[in-house]
Amino acid sequence: MALAASKVEPGTVRKGLPTYSRADLQKHKKKEERVWVSYNNGVYDVTDYVTQHPGGSKILLAAGGDIGPYWDMYGAHKQGEIYEVLEGLRVGNIIEPPEKRTVDKNDPYAKDPKRHPALIPSSERPFNAEPPVSLLLQDFITPTDLFFVRNHLPVPTIKPDNYRLNISVHGKEKALSLYTLHKLEQKSVVTTIQCAGNRRSDMVKVKPVKGLNWGFAAISTAEWSGPTLKDVLKQCGVNLDTTEYQHIQFEGCDTGPDGTTYGASIPIELARILRNDIIVATKMNGEDIPRDHGYPVRIIIPGVVGARQVKWLDKIELSNEESSSHWQQRDYKGFNSSVDWHNVDFSKSTAIQLLPVQSAICEPEDGETLPDDEEVTVRGYAWSGGGRGIYRVDVSADGGKTWVTAELQHPPSQTPYTSWAWTFWEAQVALPKGHGGKTELVCKACDSQYNVQPDNVESIWNLRGCLSSAWHRVNVSVPK
Amino acid sequence: MALAASKVEPGTVRKGLPTYSRADLQKHKKKEERVWVSYNNGVYDVTDYVTQHPGGSKILLAAGGDIGPYWDMYGAHKQGEIYEVLEGLRVGNIIEPPEKRTVDKNDPYAKDPKRHPALIPSSERPFNAEPPVSLLLQDFITPTDLFFVRNHLPVPTIKPDNYRLNISVHGKEKALSLYTLHKLEQKSVVTTIQCAGNRRSDMVKVKPVKGLNWGFAAISTAEWSGPTLKDVLKQCGVNLDTTEYQHIQFEGCDTGPDGTTYGASIPIELARILRNDIIVATKMNGEDIPRDHGYPVRIIIPGVVGARQVKWLDKIELSNEESSSHWQQRDYKGFNSSVDWHNVDFSKSTAIQLLPVQSAICEPEDGETLPDDEEVTVRGYAWSGGGRGIYRVDVSADGGKTWVTAELQHPPSQTPYTSWAWTFWEAQVALPKGHGGKTELVCKACDSQYNVQPDNVESIWNLRGCLSSAWHRVNVSVPK
Repeated sequence: MALAASKVEPGTVRKGLPTYSRADLQKHKKKEERVWVSYNNGVYDVTDYVTQHPGGSKILLAAGGDIGPYWDMYGAHKQGEIYEVLEGLRVGNIIEPPEKRTVDKNDPYAKDPKRHPALIPSSERPFNAEPPVSLLLQDFITPTDLFFVRNHLPVPTIKPDNYRLNISVHGKEKALSLYTLHKLEQKSVVTTIQCAGNRRSDMVKVKPVKGLNWGFAAISTAEWSGPTLKDVLKQCGVNLDTTEYQHIQFEGCDTGPDGTTYGASIPIELARILRNDIIVATKMNGEDIPRDHGYPVRIIIPGVVGARQVKWLDKIELSNEESSSHWQQRDYKGFNSSVDWHNVDFSKSTAIQLLPVQSAICEPEDGETLPDDEEVTVRGYAWSGGGRGIYRVDVSADGGKTWVTAELQHPPSQTPYTSWAWTFWEAQVALPKGHGGKTELVCKACDSQYNVQPDNVESIWNLRGCLSSAWHRVNVSVPK
Repeated sequence: MALAASKVEPGTVRKGLPTYSRADLQKHKKKEERVWVSYNNGVYDVTDYVTQHPGGSKILLAAGGDIGPYWDMYGAHKQGEIYEVLEGLRVGNIIEPPEKRTVDKNDPYAKDPKRHPALIPSSERPFNAEPPVSLLLQDFITPTDLFFVRNHLPVPTIKPDNYRLNISVHGKEKALSLYTLHKLEQKSVVTTIQCAGNRRSDMVKVKPVKGLNWGFAAISTAEWSGPTLKDVLKQCGVNLDTTEYQHIQFEGCDTGPDGTTYGASIPIELARILRNDIIVATKMNGEDIPRDHGYPVRIIIPGVVGARQVKWLDKIELSNEESSSHWQQRDYKGFNSSVDWHNVDFSKSTAIQLLPVQSAICEPEDGETLPDDEEVTVRGYAWSGGGRGIYRVDVSADGGKTWVTAELQHPPSQTPYTSWAWTFWEAQVALPKGHGGKTELVCKACDSQYNVQPDNVESIWNLRGCLSSAWHRVNVSVPK
């Protein structure tokens, strides 16, 4: 039944249909209860439409909720033909607004921004969340709203007119306004940022660790723009190539209840190696950086762990010391698997900067039942720190006995030694016969230094659960 | 019995002692037959001296042969007190010269240089050899005579006055004499060179591969000096930073029977990243480069596989293509373990340039029986390509169940991101109890990108046996 709704935004209230509450809607998340979604004031039953949906089961991410935030992200939905299809599934009206947020004024997180409903939180306060794996390969540049969020403290509220980036050298401070940053030559870099804790949930299976239980989507890609750090320092009379200082410290505006601010640093040598690519970013994907990602200014250091790419950047200081912050000194460091909390000495390890080679399978997903085919299409991402591109991804459908070399989609305009962004990959892999209904898909990547991922997570287990980069394994069911 | 020999070079013929032949000497290699060595015209029985020797059992490397070449390398031996000790062990005279070399004029290798007897050949024609593991940690800079040798063809004979380095750009050639190279600003770099096939013998245990059966000492360190490649190109009117050519090709003077010369190339981008450290070397450890290592000129590209550091450098050519040589196109590439000779497509893989993180245990040696102690001192080397320094080496005495973090001796004056030379390491590790007389020592390194070695060699097996960098395992006996 195609309604004459093609000229108007769908979801206006329609007379003669029942009215539902948000609570009613939320009861319709699964096929058994029929799957409903809302759009504006419309309620729709999409249960039978899933098989026709060009994006497949991704539509189910909105099950029991509003599809508006998804359509905002994937704008191609907003056209007459699709409106018609949607109205054809109409079952009712909804008057209640999509989300009510109760705010406790004493909650330090009360002023945190609203997030996209598709984000999967690993912690609400501070807010930390990753996108659903099913959407990760949808776009090479992660939609801004889906970019994984890693906050250590409440999101600060910063008025752009009052904002100043403080540069501290030789005990003197200069304060640069956003206007000044915008006046400098602008550069853009497309780079993947990964949390040191990405894939921690794999490590937890071996033995408990302290840290957020990230899946494998604490990694995202964006285009960041602004002046280079080199030019900003030059503006303040500092020559990055000749300064005798040994470290560059970054301090955020985000502040804890005890007044601590987030801080990190990188060695000057790393700043020199990356001289043309470290950005004092004011734009993310061509727009102002969203509050969750550092509005109005974030430092972007390609190939380096997310933890050093300080958001809500308050201060850059040249120093002979590393940052003294908790996160530089007593967190985000690597240890061997025999070091635990009773014998750890954080001063004996080196702060994580460049991240090692990584890869993961996004399709099929763990626990999925595959159709009765002879082969399976396996897709995923691979990435390595320090600009090392991806030379090869190997995929196995028999738990690692035999391997197929995947086809790679390299980051455009980036070379094997300045691959700041991830590589997507895809492989057709024959399913083993006589597998008794179950099999393990495995992937492993090799970067442009021919470094490879370790075989087993047991061998890289560490008390903080960082650097979880063993072969990625996904268990699937196959018809017997 | 101390003889009055302290003022003179020892080993003069002494009357009243029996005279032996080289063949006699060679019968005395083991304790059971008494261990003899020669020095000049002296024959010495060192059997009972081994336990007093400050260098321990290293003296046995010369068993049945001449110790002269070792004393030439470790000059501290050449002093009165040691001469006295030696003469105290005198058992006879030897008149026959230390080595006879029969030369077949039709042998293309007839003009190859004489090598140090301590080198352990993996192939005689072309000559390929590695130093004994017991000497590898003796000096941070490998003695020139012990530096591993990797020749693909006979060693060319080059007269310095006739030598020209040909630089080819835009189809025009310039020829630079040694005099011109010496006139340019000289730079020195201490760098470790590793063969892509180092540790191939570990890989062979999984399944046969094609390649020389290297142990784990196809790796050595030297100081190389000469003008930078950047300056040499500048001398020829080429700006490395702005040239539009995509590759730099290197051609050697070494020539096969069919007229093929050895060749290799690196991408221009890599040359730019390493701009200040690629040396057109004319000196190795302060002396003319020995013939086996490229006399008179070798290109030194720190952090890159040995195969691209072309010896006897004849020509540098800027090109839009990689070298078309066999060694660039159909050798020295990586594949997964399911690729074998029936299905290999060399065009699908990328030529090895930067090498991955590596480490090995040099002491104790495989098969050794350890003394009845509670712990063992384990020593070795670690290295990673691309200038990545070593952050951590883990050592296990129980086959990888528990780990101890080793003490590191980093390369002097090199930083975590420009560590061209190896790191030596040492760990005291408790021996497991109830180990039934046998245990497996294991080491694994982590570089400044936090990349780690793969757990098992099975997972990185490849048909050419390159990139063998799994955890290094050494089996030792311990008193029950």
